[in-house]
Amino acid sequence: MLGQHFATRINSFASGAHAYWPDLGGKPTVAQMVARAATVDGLTELDLNYPDHIGAAPAEIATMVNGEGLALSGLAMRYYTNPAFKRGAFTNPDPAVRREAIELTKRGIDATREMGASMMTLWLGQDGWDYNFQCDYPALWAHEIEGIAAVAEHDPDCRISIEYKPDEPRARSILPDAATTLIAIDEVGAPNLGVTIDVAHALYAGETPAFAAAMVQRRSQLFGLHLNDGYGKRDDGMMVASVHEQATMELLREVRRGGFDGAIYFDTFPDASGLDPVSECAANIRTVRRMLAAIEAMDGDNALADAQGRHDPVAAQEVARLALARATAES
Amino acid sequence: MLGQHFATRINSFASGAHAYWPDLGGKPTVAQMVARAATVDGLTELDLNYPDHIGAAPAEIATMVNGEGLALSGLAMRYYTNPAFKRGAFTNPDPAVRREAIELTKRGIDATREMGASMMTLWLGQDGWDYNFQCDYPALWAHEIEGIAAVAEHDPDCRISIEYKPDEPRARSILPDAATTLIAIDEVGAPNLGVTIDVAHALYAGETPAFAAAMVQRRSQLFGLHLNDGYGKRDDGMMVASVHEQATMELLREVRRGGFDGAIYFDTFPDASGLDPVSECAANIRTVRRMLAAIEAMDGDNALADAQGRHDPVAAQEVARLALARATAES
Amino acid sequence: MLGQHFATRINSFASGAHAYWPDLGGKPTVAQMVARAATVDGLTELDLNYPDHIGAAPAEIATMVNGEGLALSGLAMRYYTNPAFKRGAFTNPDPAVRREAIELTKRGIDATREMGASMMTLWLGQDGWDYNFQCDYPALWAHEIEGIAAVAEHDPDCRISIEYKPDEPRARSILPDAATTLIAIDEVGAPNLGVTIDVAHALYAGETPAFAAAMVQRRSQLFGLHLNDGYGKRDDGMMVASVHEQATMELLREVRRGGFDGAIYFDTFPDASGLDPVSECAANIRTVRRMLAAIEAMDGDNALADAQGRHDPVAAQEVARLALARATAES
Amino acid sequence: MLGQHFATRINSFASGAHAYWPDLGGKPTVAQMVARAATVDGLTELDLNYPDHIGAAPAEIATMVNGEGLALSGLAMRYYTNPAFKRGAFTNPDPAVRREAIELTKRGIDATREMGASMMTLWLGQDGWDYNFQCDYPALWAHEIEGIAAVAEHDPDCRISIEYKPDEPRARSILPDAATTLIAIDEVGAPNLGVTIDVAHALYAGETPAFAAAMVQRRSQLFGLHLNDGYGKRDDGMMVASVHEQATMELLREVRRGGFDGAIYFDTFPDASGLDPVSECAANIRTVRRMLAAIEAMDGDNALADAQGRHDPVAAQEVARLALARATAES
Repeated sequence: MLGQHFATRINSFASGAHAYWPDLGGKPTVAQMVARAATVDGLTELDLNYPDHIGAAPAEIATMVNGEGLALSGLAMRYYTNPAFKRGAFTNPDPAVRREAIELTKRGIDATREMGASMMTLWLGQDGWDYNFQCDYPALWAHEIEGIAAVAEHDPDCRISIEYKPDEPRARSILPDAATTLIAIDEVGAPNLGVTIDVAHALYAGETPAFAAAMVQRRSQLFGLHLNDGYGKRDDGMMVASVHEQATMELLREVRRGGFDGAIYFDTFPDASGLDPVSECAANIRTVRRMLAAIEAMDGDNALADAQGRHDPVAAQEVARLALARATAES
Repeated sequence: MLGQHFATRINSFASGAHAYWPDLGGKPTVAQMVARAATVDGLTELDLNYPDHIGAAPAEIATMVNGEGLALSGLAMRYYTNPAFKRGAFTNPDPAVRREAIELTKRGIDATREMGASMMTLWLGQDGWDYNFQCDYPALWAHEIEGIAAVAEHDPDCRISIEYKPDEPRARSILPDAATTLIAIDEVGAPNLGVTIDVAHALYAGETPAFAAAMVQRRSQLFGLHLNDGYGKRDDGMMVASVHEQATMELLREVRRGGFDGAIYFDTFPDASGLDPVSECAANIRTVRRMLAAIEAMDGDNALADAQGRHDPVAAQEVARLALARATAES
Repeated sequence: MLGQHFATRINSFASGAHAYWPDLGGKPTVAQMVARAATVDGLTELDLNYPDHIGAAPAEIATMVNGEGLALSGLAMRYYTNPAFKRGAFTNPDPAVRREAIELTKRGIDATREMGASMMTLWLGQDGWDYNFQCDYPALWAHEIEGIAAVAEHDPDCRISIEYKPDEPRARSILPDAATTLIAIDEVGAPNLGVTIDVAHALYAGETPAFAAAMVQRRSQLFGLHLNDGYGKRDDGMMVASVHEQATMELLREVRRGGFDGAIYFDTFPDASGLDPVSECAANIRTVRRMLAAIEAMDGDNALADAQGRHDPVAAQEVARLALARATAES
Repeated sequence: MLGQHFATRINSFASGAHAYWPDLGGKPTVAQMVARAATVDGLTELDLNYPDHIGAAPAEIATMVNGEGLALSGLAMRYYTNPAFKRGAFTNPDPAVRREAIELTKRGIDATREMGASMMTLWLGQDGWDYNFQCDYPALWAHEIEGIAAVAEHDPDCRISIEYKPDEPRARSILPDAATTLIAIDEVGAPNLGVTIDVAHALYAGETPAFAAAMVQRRSQLFGLHLNDGYGKRDDGMMVASVHEQATMELLREVRRGGFDGAIYFDTFPDASGLDPVSECAANIRTVRRMLAAIEAMDGDNALADAQGRHDPVAAQEVARLALARATAES
């Protein structure tokens, strides 16, 4: 059931490190950040990045995470180990670098399984272009499809979830939105492929997150849900529903309706502005719980369905707003 | 006191005209739209456009509006009478057209006073450019300043409020945001000049509406407040707080703090998507009343001030959200 | 061969109507606008809107257009005849209105064929939503697919081209970009379906136009090409390449590579800012001819392919810029 | 005379470091990057960041730079030394941190003078907010003004140039655009204050760069000009005129007209996508030289002034385009 599993971004727990660990010399270790994350009431899971957080010892990291009372949702690839990845991972102009990206991903999938998890998130942020005339688009697309196919077939029991994003670090991503990602998944055709929706990414892709979720659930599978918020221009990494309350609650209702019961992951950046990551994460959990309570209450009568049958936003938004206000006031 | 006066856009009441007035041949008359607006519970005032809604008989229109139990907040200029205005009103390349725009505005100010009101809103949407190299910017700016100065000095007892907007109909407006408008007002230097903030315009200018209000209140005078909402890319004309709840409530708190007690005007477009304008307007009034009740409750203790003293959004947003939820649940 | 057929928006020729037709009472007739369009050197074709420009006499309109020496590229649907379409054409909540939209489109397709043309452009700008919670997305999508399927099967010999657009008039379109449109076309599965790319729409959908074209050519068929330009936030309707020169030339190269040889249609709005539509259209034709000459010159050697093989924008953009500069300087 | 001085971002020269310096262990030193920059034909100057590039030995760094045949345009502040700056430099909620930011800036100004330069660029990217309700805007603004005033009066012979930017790292900057920056400068009132325009920042602030320059030259002083390009949504750091050719040339013409003859600084990020920084910088110099040649040629006749007198973009853009094409084809 949605709302049983909450995960978050581990790097958030480097925020205000020197106040939290007064004796800390450099950066906190992964174990230190995990221990700090474990103090968040209600947090059940973590996603870690491969290879950054894992290194050569996946099993030990898994033991450490579990020892803190947390489960591992899965791993997420990061293509930073070779500076050549700046020009592309699966779409790099150099075939050797493309092979290296694919091999690294396969090793990440192996690490995922070794850690007892079964989902690898692919954010292919390096795959795209910056300039007009820089790339041959049909060739670029073919490389992206080849790369996804190669890693999807590596271990059919590991779900591969593609997290799209409009831009950054590249000025233009090859997988910028849900629809393009669904086309890529359709072309690869592997049953273990699915999509991760990140709210801030969806907003600055110009999407309505709930519509994106509906399309993902119709055409593929929703494997990951990253909640956060932003002003719709970049990946602001703000607290859940701090800007777009109605859009966030609508998204939660749509994924619940589609049967999604995975972890709700908070992809926020409290470290970017020096917030306390523990209270920030607790606030996100509290917000989601209020929304889920409101959604459950709304499902009890037909008011929303009636309003939607007429496409009537005056009635529909009032139903949602009242339900959330009541759930919040009572919480 | 803020919240005593609610005004709205009269053209909204042409929405679904043929269902509302089954015998209607063409478009509804101004009087018909005013009569329909008067059925909104809580609405106290109207703004009308000059010359569109006024024609040659301002006093008769005023009598008609008052006869429906509504006051007139003021008039708002529209530069549509001469197709040449498409290339600029005060910044038109033709001096004769610039003079015509100034004269039309003066007649509008006269009509405002004749109708017993004392505020003219200037939305100089035609003043700007579309293309690089199209205009000489220093000359364009000088014309804009001259035009504003000429109409401001016409009747020092009539407040002139400039409503900025980033674009549309021009691809680029010469007064796109609060700061540029404040510079223009500073250059003209007339005491009867002020600013109208329109939330949707502010959002797609990339502004935080409450910060824009604080700047207007510091450097000039806030004369008009247009509430509505949008997705931050264009003038969507959506219901108040339907997208940006926190930003709207923050704006209301800031203008109240600055002493603004004018009419709250709803610049929404229910007619664009065929909504019932009466229930849409009632929803906007209801939303604002809940927010004002929440703001009053928040002022009762120091929780928000404490949070702001630390720049702590986790605590600050929870204060605001809880206050609004309680005011909503109790409403 | 690309560049043999140039078409444009007929309503542009209402710009400055009273100066052009000093005796004109109201708006110019379609015949008057066609006659004015026919004075543009190099213009070969027109697209007309159904039902606005056609009324009950398609054959007579076709004769009139041909009499001016112009061909008819096709028709484009406009859903304005029933105010209820504001809440949706194929996705209207009322089944009777959905049927009406489908029937109107079928009559438009019949008119297209009666006029000797074989392409109907569908811009489904009314299909979408404004507010979160307003609509049930899976139901909305199903209606859109049903509508497209119904009109596609009406006349398999008439190409149906879908022109996507991110928003306006709706705050959110159900077919906002190339990828979502390609998914819809895939779901319908009719062989006479294709896509129209409009540069300004693509830009404010956040797309790279040439990448969108490559995807359309890979997954479906490019039936229409609307050139214009804008600042990437709304449908500015500006002259070709007035803002995005490299992106425009790259698009032309990609569609030429994909074998597109249809009419290049200028979807610009000189009437919005009172420009002379004849010289504006002539400028667009001149710009495209220079670009096509440059593209042909670039194809003569391997410099661009070499640069693209390395994803090298420094070299690639210099090749394109020099080729265009030479073609322009010599023109 | 404009075009005699070209400067660039030194960190660009870390791009592809391991290929360029095969024996390099970690990151290249400042001296290594300066030596590499010095190989760019036509580059005359550098800006360095304080304290990052300078440390405790300004005079030695100056000697090293000069020894490579390059001048120092000035320094630019970076507020990264204390993690507390993430929540604000001059606008930090903690008065001690605000004082630290001011002191650091004064030491930077001292270093500037010690190095024989006389311009300090302030990019106050940490000053702003992320969330609604996070800050008290009037207090925040007062702190910003106090901080600017304190550093401006530290050394009246050192020009202080404020470089505005809409967002990043903060979700909202307190000085997001030219107009707000001009208001701040007006409030401080110090004669050694001026503005740096960065094209990519201006574009994603929604500005027309040449209009921003005209306003800066009217109300204050243009001290710095950062050329680059982007898609108008974020700080893409792309090559000069790679996206917005007309806007860039228009800007160059406007600053030249206003008498700006300082260094043209390229604030591009070739290192972000692994480009060769030497050829990238050479391309930027080449592009600017072509544009300046075109501007000079345009000044030779009245065609542009005539077109601008009518606000005629068809004629105006053709003048600019032809001039640039000829200058490019002949270069």
